[in-house]
Amino acid sequence: MIPPPSLIQRTQVEHLVRRALYERLGRPVPRGALAPNPLVVNVSARHCHLTVQAVEALFGKGRTLTPMKWLYQKGQYAAQESVTLIGPRSRVISNLRILGPCRDINQVELALTDAIALGFDIPVRLSGSIAGTPGCMLMGPNGFLEMKEGVIRASPHVHMCPEDAAFYGVKKGDFMKLRIGGQCATTFDRLLVRVDPDFRLEVHIDTDEGNACALQSDTPAELLK
Amino acid sequence: MIPPPSLIQRTQVEHLVRRALYERLGRPVPRGALAPNPLVVNVSARHCHLTVQAVEALFGKGRTLTPMKWLYQKGQYAAQESVTLIGPRSRVISNLRILGPCRDINQVELALTDAIALGFDIPVRLSGSIAGTPGCMLMGPNGFLEMKEGVIRASPHVHMCPEDAAFYGVKKGDFMKLRIGGQCATTFDRLLVRVDPDFRLEVHIDTDEGNACALQSDTPAELLK
Repeated sequence: MIPPPSLIQRTQVEHLVRRALYERLGRPVPRGALAPNPLVVNVSARHCHLTVQAVEALFGKGRTLTPMKWLYQKGQYAAQESVTLIGPRSRVISNLRILGPCRDINQVELALTDAIALGFDIPVRLSGSIAGTPGCMLMGPNGFLEMKEGVIRASPHVHMCPEDAAFYGVKKGDFMKLRIGGQCATTFDRLLVRVDPDFRLEVHIDTDEGNACALQSDTPAELLK
Repeated sequence: MIPPPSLIQRTQVEHLVRRALYERLGRPVPRGALAPNPLVVNVSARHCHLTVQAVEALFGKGRTLTPMKWLYQKGQYAAQESVTLIGPRSRVISNLRILGPCRDINQVELALTDAIALGFDIPVRLSGSIAGTPGCMLMGPNGFLEMKEGVIRASPHVHMCPEDAAFYGVKKGDFMKLRIGGQCATTFDRLLVRVDPDFRLEVHIDTDEGNACALQSDTPAELLK
């Protein structure tokens, strides 16, 4: 259940090399390169989080999630298992990926483009804040699960540890800006800050946001207060 | 072939009323309210532009486009006619709207989300600048049309007349910023400026960009140099 060490080290090594290069070349070091941790921006495609009970209802008694791909946040993974999402007009999205481990609520996170295609009118919410949001049906190989609520568009957010928060001068619940460079340069002006000692510095934006700014792995990105 | 006058007058009237209200209330008038014309931001869903010959190939000899809905730019319309777009992996998008009147090139404009779903690798281009871009097949009731090139993601852009350009201090080919407010506040940092005496002040963004910033008709928008 541990992510491969190469994945963890790569961004850290790049971060250290970048800083050393600036110093070696005698050029002013950009603020981001002085930060305690490298900034990673990842696009979250539509996905869901499920409870242990929901996994059993959809996949069968005693069934659990199987990690397929480790994510950047410690212990988080994309599961091998996926479900079919049935929207309000009986339109479906197949292969909706489940992210593990299981949580204490069921939640579906869609981009607005997904939601419009399915006929959902979804609000922008902090993950976990699902009161009053639309519900949906999920279908798995073992049966259906009716979610009374929990379909949201996740607020774009940044995960950070207290050391990162101190460096950027922000605290949990604040908003900051994410400036993305390149040909489709875009600044996301309301990036929600989430702070936890276990968090690695990582921005999560959805596919609409990622495609609007044409984010690639080498696209410049900067956090601004 | 003339747009209904009520559509033209509405934004102009709102613009004048807004300015008068600020003055009446003795409050400082925001820069946008002092502009010669109101700012309109519209989302362009995926669509295509076709030549007269392409319309005939797809719909039959002598067939022309029929206006269904007038757009904000003078003389431009969404046609009743639509085509099926066939992508590189034989995936299709049905009901791809044709915008009229006919042009001298064939061009398909997709959002990156559309392009990824179809398997296209498309560049960001100014409308009309299609050399070296991917091609596609279009299907209409009368037959197929093979486009050797012309599938693009349109660069987000603003149409303006010379008077607007003078007010904002920009010229054709410049980039400016579009700041969108609200819960998903976003600033598009590379908005291409297009100037023509016939243009009405209007920003065109695609569905990814529009959904990323959750644009609604009442979402605040501002042009910045």
